[in-house]
Amino acid sequence: MSSSIKRIGNSPRWSDIVLYQGVARWVEVADDTSDDERGQIQQVLRQIDQTLCEIGSSRQQMLQIIVHLSSLQSVDELNRQWDQWVPQGNAPVRACVQSGLGGNCLVEMVIEAAVVSGS
Amino acid sequence: MSSSIKRIGNSPRWSDIVLYQGVARWVEVADDTSDDERGQIQQVLRQIDQTLCEIGSSRQQMLQIIVHLSSLQSVDELNRQWDQWVPQGNAPVRACVQSGLGGNCLVEMVIEAAVVSGS
Amino acid sequence: MSSSIKRIGNSPRWSDIVLYQGVARWVEVADDTSDDERGQIQQVLRQIDQTLCEIGSSRQQMLQIIVHLSSLQSVDELNRQWDQWVPQGNAPVRACVQSGLGGNCLVEMVIEAAVVSGS
Repeated sequence: MSSSIKRIGNSPRWSDIVLYQGVARWVEVADDTSDDERGQIQQVLRQIDQTLCEIGSSRQQMLQIIVHLSSLQSVDELNRQWDQWVPQGNAPVRACVQSGLGGNCLVEMVIEAAVVSGS
Repeated sequence: MSSSIKRIGNSPRWSDIVLYQGVARWVEVADDTSDDERGQIQQVLRQIDQTLCEIGSSRQQMLQIIVHLSSLQSVDELNRQWDQWVPQGNAPVRACVQSGLGGNCLVEMVIEAAVVSGS
Repeated sequence: MSSSIKRIGNSPRWSDIVLYQGVARWVEVADDTSDDERGQIQQVLRQIDQTLCEIGSSRQQMLQIIVHLSSLQSVDELNRQWDQWVPQGNAPVRACVQSGLGGNCLVEMVIEAAVVSGS
């Protein structure tokens, strides 16, 4: 288990992913925020899949997801997609709250996942 | 310190607790959300105690608690109960913010605690 | 890497910083909340620097910062100061949401940083 910090996708403002001691941390918002809630949730879950793949992790290794929705009216749509997406028996811990989000962002997720080999 | 992931209380939607590398992560809301703020805060703190006991941790090993209140008017009641509950000299880091919460939920806490043996 | 918990700045209500297994967790709000958004953001970033110094970490070792702003109108000012402050190529993961904050608090940040030697 490496104790060095690995950063992926450095923009000047933030890293897309930070890996440290077997835990990957990242934040996901929809790439295209012109989409409606259904589309943005779909994008975010797909983007999480892509990131999990990129770092050699998987849906089965997610530890925690904090979901920020701009409106609690999106909870039903979130749950509808989430329940199809999350691996039963290996689901992460989840919190879901309404927060004000910038731009046209309707959903923002903060994710922690395990990465087994010291990436 | 085990590097495998242990999940407790898997519902289809989330795990109640995820343990990984000596850290337990979980989210607590009141089991009975028909209660008022005083009752819900009381429930959540008791439920945290139960979880700490279940995983072989303790109040003295809590690392961080993020408190989401549906109303900032609940801060005084939170602090009144919190100050009795938290172990002086071994308190966790705490953030407390107002967020929109689903259902009749008045308080939601996101907890990280240390688990010493590799559970 | 020590597996014991180290706490710094214990008040009765919370620890200022908790260090565990090479990760420091803490929460920062402006010491002087009579200041405006510009001043409070400036204070919080300076206080983070002080804490990083105190624990033997650095801006280059920050893992994640969750920013809670009391108003999304503060995002531009946050970004203006943040972009000068954050080390390019070694930025942490960042989420930024609007949450209700207590007192006169305009910004609250939840920080995780790596601490290399087992402090």
